[in-house]
Formats: sequence, C-alpha cells, structure tokens
Amino acid sequence: MRALILAGGSGTRFWPLSRRDRPKQLLALDGERSLLQSTVDRLHPLIPASDIWVCTTERLADGVRAQLPEVPAEQVLCEPEGRNTAPAIGWSLQQMAGGGDLGGERDDIVAVLPADHRFANAGAFRDALAAAAEVSRQTDHVMTLGVQPRWAETGYGYLELGEPMSDAGGALELAQFREKPDAATAETYLNSGRHLWNAGIFVFGASTLLAFLRRFEPEIARGLDALRSPEAAEPSRAAEIYAGLPSISIDYAVMERLPEHRAISAVRLDAGWSDLGSWQALSEELPAGDDGNQVHGDVLTVDSDGNLLWADEGTIAVAGVSGLVVVRTGDAVLVVPKERSQDVKKIVEELKNRRRDDRL
Amino acid sequence: MRALILAGGSGTRFWPLSRRDRPKQLLALDGERSLLQSTVDRLHPLIPASDIWVCTTERLADGVRAQLPEVPAEQVLCEPEGRNTAPAIGWSLQQMAGGGDLGGERDDIVAVLPADHRFANAGAFRDALAAAAEVSRQTDHVMTLGVQPRWAETGYGYLELGEPMSDAGGALELAQFREKPDAATAETYLNSGRHLWNAGIFVFGASTLLAFLRRFEPEIARGLDALRSPEAAEPSRAAEIYAGLPSISIDYAVMERLPEHRAISAVRLDAGWSDLGSWQALSEELPAGDDGNQVHGDVLTVDSDGNLLWADEGTIAVAGVSGLVVVRTGDAVLVVPKERSQDVKKIVEELKNRRRDDRL
Repeated sequence: MRALILAGGSGTRFWPLSRRDRPKQLLALDGERSLLQSTVDRLHPLIPASDIWVCTTERLADGVRAQLPEVPAEQVLCEPEGRNTAPAIGWSLQQMAGGGDLGGERDDIVAVLPADHRFANAGAFRDALAAAAEVSRQTDHVMTLGVQPRWAETGYGYLELGEPMSDAGGALELAQFREKPDAATAETYLNSGRHLWNAGIFVFGASTLLAFLRRFEPEIARGLDALRSPEAAEPSRAAEIYAGLPSISIDYAVMERLPEHRAISAVRLDAGWSDLGSWQALSEELPAGDDGNQVHGDVLTVDSDGNLLWADEGTIAVAGVSGLVVVRTGDAVLVVPKERSQDVKKIVEELKNRRRDDRL
Repeated sequence: MRALILAGGSGTRFWPLSRRDRPKQLLALDGERSLLQSTVDRLHPLIPASDIWVCTTERLADGVRAQLPEVPAEQVLCEPEGRNTAPAIGWSLQQMAGGGDLGGERDDIVAVLPADHRFANAGAFRDALAAAAEVSRQTDHVMTLGVQPRWAETGYGYLELGEPMSDAGGALELAQFREKPDAATAETYLNSGRHLWNAGIFVFGASTLLAFLRRFEPEIARGLDALRSPEAAEPSRAAEIYAGLPSISIDYAVMERLPEHRAISAVRLDAGWSDLGSWQALSEELPAGDDGNQVHGDVLTVDSDGNLLWADEGTIAVAGVSGLVVVRTGDAVLVVPKERSQDVKKIVEELKNRRRDDRL
C-alpha cells in the first residue's frame, strides 16, 4: 500500500495562526510535530516514508519538504494550481505511476489521506487502514474509513451503511453518501447504528479509481491525458491545461456514484479521530491546565476558565472571561467565543475584501 | 496662579498599554495628545507654560520633557523617589520657590493638578480654577474643586459641603472629607445635594499649605528642611533624606484636617470630568463607531458590539463578542469584560509575582 497525502489546503479556520504560507497542515496544534508530520509519523510502520507521496502547491512545497526530510523530495508533488480533490488525486496517481497510462493496469493500492486531521490512537488507525487495504485487494472495492458519530454533527457528511460484505469481516457495503444533515436528521443518524462520519479517507486500487474517474469525469480524464502529452513538457502549457480541469471534489466526481455500482464499502474507524475543523474542535482535543484553561505559550489568567488561549508570540492575559478563544500572533489577535469559532471564516473573508494580504 | 502637575504616577490600570516607562499620563487615550499634554494645554491661557511645574520621577523625566517642550526644563522636577503626594507637594513647593525657606512668606497661589484626568470642557475647568484662586486670595482658604456626582460611585472619596461662604459667590465651606463609601451610602450622597466627588484638585497659597504641612506633619517638614541644608547638595545624601520622609497623601496629611479649622472650601466643577481610572472609565468617554464598538488602530469586527478594541500595534479581530475590552500591544494582549477592568491590577500583580519585568 502506498499513501497519497493531500496537503494543498489553504485552510483559514485557524486564523490568525494559519496563513496562506503557513496553512493548518503545517502547524503544530496538538504537540511538537505539525499535523502533516504527524500524518506521516502515524503511517509508520504500515507505510514507510519511501512509499508516501504528498500532493501540495508550489507555494507550500518548500515548507512541506522541509518538514518531511524522510519523504523523497520528488514524491512531494506540486499541483500547477489548486483544482479541488478530483483533479488532484487523478493527477497525483498519474505522477505516482511515473506518468504512465491513466487507463493502464496497475496493481498498487493507494490510501488517500487528509494532511490535517488528528487521531488519538495511531495503532487503531493503522489497523483500520490495513483492514481496508486487505478488503480492497480481495474485492477491488473502493474503501472508505468511517467514524462512529459521537454527537449529532451537522457539519460533516455521513456514510450510510448497507449489507455486511460476505467475504470481508467487519467491512460493510456503502448504501449511500449523505450530505451534511440538518439537526433533526443528524440526531436520527446518531442513533441509527448505520451512519458513520465521512472522514475523507479512501483506500483503493489505483487502476480502479482511475477507471471510475475516466468513466464519470471524461473531461478530467482528457485533461490528464493531455498533461502526459509532449506539449505539456512546457510548464506554462501544463499549467494552462491544469487550469482548465473542472474544479470538483473526489466525493462528488466519483465516490458518491459508487454505491449504485456496489463498488464501495466502509471500514469502521475507532481511533479518536478529529478533523480539527475549528478552534473549538481543537479545544475538544486538548487537555486543560490547573486553572481550567487550555493554554499555549506565555499566558496569564485571573478568574477565567474554559478558555483556549494560544500565544504564538508575546503574552496573553485574561481576567473574568469564560469559553473564549484568544489567539495572539506576532501581528494579530483573534477573540471569539468557542461556539462561534466558525466565524473566523467571516473574518478572513473580510480581510480578503479589504485586500489585507499582509494578514492573510 | 502657578500650576504644579503631579506626574510621577506609575499607574498600572491601563496595562498592557501603560508600562513602568510609559505610564498612563504619558499615553494619548482620548486623542492625539497625551493626558499630560492635555493637562498643560487645558490650562492655557489661564496659566501659561512658563508658570507650570511638573513633579515626576527620574525614570519618566526625559519622556515628560520631550512631551512638554514649552515647559522650561528646570521646571520638570524629579523626585529622588516616589513618596506619595504630601512629600511630593511639599518638596515641589520648596523647589518652586527656588529652595527658599519652607516657612517663609510667599504670595504665590498654586494649583495642584493630577496629570492623568480628562475634562470634556476645558473652558469650564479654567473658570472653576480661576474662581477657586480668587476665593483663595480673598480668604486664604485651601480650595478644592468638587465634581457633582453622576452616579453612586463607591471608588471615589467625597467632599461634604457645609455653609456657603459669605464673601465668595459659589464657594462653600467644606464640612468634611468622606472616605470611599459603600453602595448604600454612595446612593445617599448622590441624592443629598451636599456631596461632591473629590477630584484631587487643590488651589492654595503656597505659604498657607506649607504652614499646615509643618504643623500637621513635622517629620515631613524636618525632612524638607534637611533637604535645603548644605549636606543635601550631595545627591546620594538628598536621596537618603527623601527616602526617610513618611509616605503619606496630601489628603490624609493636610486636607482632611482642615475642615475642623474652617480653612478649606470647595468650588463646584462641572466640566465633564473623568479620572479615566480604568479601561471601562475610558470606554465611557469615547464615541462608538458605526459598528457599535470603540476602536483604536487596526481593528476588524464581525457580529460584535459594545466592545473597546485598542490595537496599539498589529490587528485585532473579534467575532460574536460584546462588552469586552481587548488591548493589543507589540508584546501582549489583554482580554477582560469592561465591568471587570479593575482586575487589570490583579494581572499586573501576578506579573510582579512572576518577576516579569519584560512586561511591566
């Protein structure tokens, strides 16, 4: 099994800590290692660094290579530009095969992994990944790793399970993908016993996935074919072709169409997963200190608890506050209630509107 | 009339903006000019800069002189060390007389003024000061300027008024000083019609005040005499003598003893006074912007109102918060609810406990 880590995201949800040149996956949010580094660490020894590819962008490539000296530099792939996950995965699979024929036969199993998630239990994660790889080898199914819901989350997509697979202990066929639900629907999912959170982790035979991509998204396939043509040796021409690819996610382009073909199954993932999708989500993962606050860096509290206080540079001092996220960097500070931490996106939008490139 | 501005305070209530080397009086909190500069500006044309003395400390002297180029440098007096207002005023009056005899006859009227208060109406302030000087000249009373209470404040001392003075329109004899009251007492003061806030502003004949100081605090008088002796020409000896003076306020040492001698009166001050005693007090003086927040510097708000957001350096961004004070400097940030802004003192105490001189 080889790994393809998608590390091109420009996530804005951890502003002001995350920036264009320092997105979430490059940050150390839960320890000494960045989320990207932890993603690589976590695969060991199931997938050694020599079998890991990383798909990122030109802007981030130097940072990614610096953080991952154990991954061969040529396996850090730079998309000409970000075009969502379907083009990124198709193009990366092609690069991983040395630019070989998109439709040709290959026997490699690939795990596609986000670069910025957290797993409390790395061993359980590897076990699930190995199990998915085994089922994929036996059945040629595309496999997803689904997380048992712990609350009625409306911000995630769900996997609706169908029949157990006869010849694969633990894996279940996927009945369908479910979009982000409303609160009432999320509640029924939570209690149904047949819904899992979609963690965006897939394991598949490379040839199988590429064949589905060609079948469902011929425009992407034509573009990827063109990228293998001699004219695409010219970088500006390759960039032009890449820019013409439809911007579409792998879920929408391929995965959501597979249940009706009975070509996708799920393995349960019980490994303390979090997508760390917001400061609040991070707060749920971090231990609190003696004073009841989660702190990073130089922080001083008076009569305050339940806060996430993150001093990247300088000092944070609070008095008489609860339930806040306060983040201080060298040039900015954010103050937001934990439960409003999704609103960081609005702040970043406003910075974009004001053309504040110095703070993005 | 000459002015003596007391500018030695090391106020910590505006941390992290105020620091040891940049205390409140040197800060521009309500406009372009610092509170100290505004104090000098406000006296013009009643008291020209050539008749203004400033009492401060060695640590602050350069900053004070830089801010007040119009005040003769030798009239910026440096206390050997801070010993509270009774020694500071006695010593300054002595310096203002060229070191002349403490008990000798002088005909100068002196107004003692805090350096860090705010007056919305400078003209009304000067009128009250001029009226107090006139009554002092006629009666040789020590005069105070008392502020009509606008709410039942428990954090101020009060002046309790007695009989109107027969020969001075508007001035009233002072029956007694009242310590900071409890809430119920403050309520009765608010409605009594005979209580004013003590704003710490006094106008008196220099000889009169010095005579009272000698009478009530002979130990201070002896120290001040010693400071005029030849041995005190040696700075280290002068510092030693000064350090031995009792640390006592002018209110406690002199003013509170004057009512029983019928030697003190009050003039009403209705000039939009604020002592700017906290971030909350400042917030009550500043206008709010279109988004309902009071902002300084580079600030971005989303769904937030009623906040005081002060960016001295860098950017402040908030979302979904109300009633907070957020202050960002180059090395620190403070977050505190407005009504808890007195707790800044606790933060500064904690910084002292931790010997964080870099943040004090």
